[in-house]
Amino acid sequence: MGVLRVTNALLLAGAESVPLPSALLQAEDGVITYVGRESEAPPCPPDAEVLDAEGMLLIPGLVNAHTHAAMTLFRGVADDMPLKPWLEEKIWPMEGRLAPEDVYWGTLLGIAEMLRAGVTCYNDMYHFFTEGARAAVDGGIRAVPSGVLLGFLPNAEDLLAEAVEFCVELVRSGPSRVTPMLGPHAPYTCPDLLLRKVITLAGEHHLGIHIHLSETAGEVEDSIREHGVTPLQHMADLGMLELQVAAAHCVHLTDADVALAAETGLGCCHCPTSNMKLASGFARVPDLLAAGAVVGLGTDGAASNNNLDMIEEARMAALIHKGYRGDPTAVTARQAFAMATLGSARALGLADRIGTLEVGKQADCVLLDLSRAHLQPLHDIVSQLIYAAQASDVHTVIVDGEVLLRDRRFLKLDEERVIAEASARSLRLAHP
Amino acid sequence: MGVLRVTNALLLAGAESVPLPSALLQAEDGVITYVGRESEAPPCPPDAEVLDAEGMLLIPGLVNAHTHAAMTLFRGVADDMPLKPWLEEKIWPMEGRLAPEDVYWGTLLGIAEMLRAGVTCYNDMYHFFTEGARAAVDGGIRAVPSGVLLGFLPNAEDLLAEAVEFCVELVRSGPSRVTPMLGPHAPYTCPDLLLRKVITLAGEHHLGIHIHLSETAGEVEDSIREHGVTPLQHMADLGMLELQVAAAHCVHLTDADVALAAETGLGCCHCPTSNMKLASGFARVPDLLAAGAVVGLGTDGAASNNNLDMIEEARMAALIHKGYRGDPTAVTARQAFAMATLGSARALGLADRIGTLEVGKQADCVLLDLSRAHLQPLHDIVSQLIYAAQASDVHTVIVDGEVLLRDRRFLKLDEERVIAEASARSLRLAHP
Repeated sequence: MGVLRVTNALLLAGAESVPLPSALLQAEDGVITYVGRESEAPPCPPDAEVLDAEGMLLIPGLVNAHTHAAMTLFRGVADDMPLKPWLEEKIWPMEGRLAPEDVYWGTLLGIAEMLRAGVTCYNDMYHFFTEGARAAVDGGIRAVPSGVLLGFLPNAEDLLAEAVEFCVELVRSGPSRVTPMLGPHAPYTCPDLLLRKVITLAGEHHLGIHIHLSETAGEVEDSIREHGVTPLQHMADLGMLELQVAAAHCVHLTDADVALAAETGLGCCHCPTSNMKLASGFARVPDLLAAGAVVGLGTDGAASNNNLDMIEEARMAALIHKGYRGDPTAVTARQAFAMATLGSARALGLADRIGTLEVGKQADCVLLDLSRAHLQPLHDIVSQLIYAAQASDVHTVIVDGEVLLRDRRFLKLDEERVIAEASARSLRLAHP
Repeated sequence: MGVLRVTNALLLAGAESVPLPSALLQAEDGVITYVGRESEAPPCPPDAEVLDAEGMLLIPGLVNAHTHAAMTLFRGVADDMPLKPWLEEKIWPMEGRLAPEDVYWGTLLGIAEMLRAGVTCYNDMYHFFTEGARAAVDGGIRAVPSGVLLGFLPNAEDLLAEAVEFCVELVRSGPSRVTPMLGPHAPYTCPDLLLRKVITLAGEHHLGIHIHLSETAGEVEDSIREHGVTPLQHMADLGMLELQVAAAHCVHLTDADVALAAETGLGCCHCPTSNMKLASGFARVPDLLAAGAVVGLGTDGAASNNNLDMIEEARMAALIHKGYRGDPTAVTARQAFAMATLGSARALGLADRIGTLEVGKQADCVLLDLSRAHLQPLHDIVSQLIYAAQASDVHTVIVDGEVLLRDRRFLKLDEERVIAEASARSLRLAHP
């Protein structure tokens, strides 16, 4: 891939960093080899690709810690409904009609939307996940796909075996932008027997696990009734929390759950918009942060959000806890930015490779255009990013040192075709 | 101004309307003379200005029912702070340094941001409000400015006299896009004597009143301690609620307050982002709607939001009450859209002129570009608008039949100069 240089940027290398004007980032074969003052940068190699970032903010790419990307196919099909009829009458019948190619195109639509919103990596769980992985490769984005495992499906064990085979093969084929995980849907949809197998196989093959945990109050009540413990404690008892686990939602936690999450390094993937929209409630994010837990941020799927905009998601995270706790200092802009970058990276076990802009990490980064009226005046760049910026301020997106979006135009992805394919398939799924 | 025709649009004439494809809107001298099926439209006059809206959604302009537009000057100056030091150490010292010209440029910056977000009318309260009104005229937007009246200022009575004079003069000079109101800040900053004068003068001159009511729990407690009644009941006792009143926030209401608001037609201006950010709490919007109260929607100022994006504000209104009430049907997308249009128009006493696209009303309307990935597929246009659309989807903005933004470019406002002037002034105010 050669050398890429981003010059003349306002750099925010991570949530803990001080903003640095006139900064330069250099990447060689996808890895950051210099990031800092332009005046102290190494000389420009003659064959380098140089991007001038005058008037722009350079940040680490946003990491969407929990989504079902192909569910863009169901965006706006059903809203403002109670959960049961929403699932049983709307979502599940449409999912029952899904073909593998639908997942491919739906995922690509999600990828197009995410790249435009500055997302350079996402954690996915869905049916036909090899198709989702193929879409990620074709879109150029970094992805952590997992196939959804549901214990009530007759072929659950076959799907697990296939998933493990796919993961092992992918890992064997060498480094790539795709890091697969295993995806048991949730404790209430996967019996212990299946979960134990997942845990054993994940441990054996060094794979992470992506699961939904403690999303609703009812789920926690049911777990206590059935197992005598909360979903988090139940997973700990099975030995899951010794592995790398990205746990979506973590809304209804006991004090002991919060401590357990912090102790075990569980990746708590906060999804504030989805938790509002489906009336799940307010996750204990301030408590998790205070306990030193790993907290990432995700959009969830487009059927329960209905967008994949991580800037907005970070804004939501910074706003709702203030209102709910009655504390205007709860979840600061800086904490929300940390969640959307390094926090999510840690939740996915990728913090050594992404989440901040540092020498030795992958060059996954985003340039935001600061020139528009809603971003002026500029007093505090983190505040501006979290409370005022829009997805459409994203000007350039780089993954693994490859420029995927430049001047808001895709260089790799055929957006028009993706929209046409995904939309046509979505209409057929909704109106068979 | 002549004849303006918008052709080939997907029309959503109001929150109660069924979407209509292939629609046409015609305006003559700023007033809508036809809106409906293109096939049944009157012939096109030869001198008409025709805008082709192929692939676009035509909606009534959004109405921001409560803001302090010039506070864009303080965007990002201080966030994540408790209210008292935020006001006393940050906002008030900067406001103390404001010059009239600062308010003019700060307001214009807010207008630029609002127009880009599809806002065609806003309800403003601020210092040097004649400068704010001048900015509205120069920007071309519809505005309801009021000068903030604070009882503790030594010149409060003089400011009231000046405000009345300005309002009367403006009304006398004939119809315009500016409808002034009187702006007593709040019951806790204005003694009864001043409020009684405001009420008398407003009644005499047929002026509306813009006030903050029941924003925080502390304000309500203080009112009950001091006056024996809630702020709403206190205003009712003074006779204010017989007039047209736009009451910002209305967060902490008793059951009796909710009934009183509905009975009197009080314009409750819901500001969900500000209420989250300042930790004021969750307004009883589902109860107000159920009681048949007038509920509009506002962004509040950019110091406590930090943007003036009404699409996002409507999304916030549709999301947070679901989470807080534990009810996924609370505040539907359609209700949020109604609040952001006709609800706000009613709260400002302008429902006979704006808030829906109907023959006889003013041609204040917005075209949104539906082509981008985050708005695909298209199943339910109201859901898409509230849960997925972005300010940057706004393509064209028309106020009073005049095209102010076209293809995301300003035709009247010099955005570059506005940004430069406002930003320079903001930096001087923050670092004197």
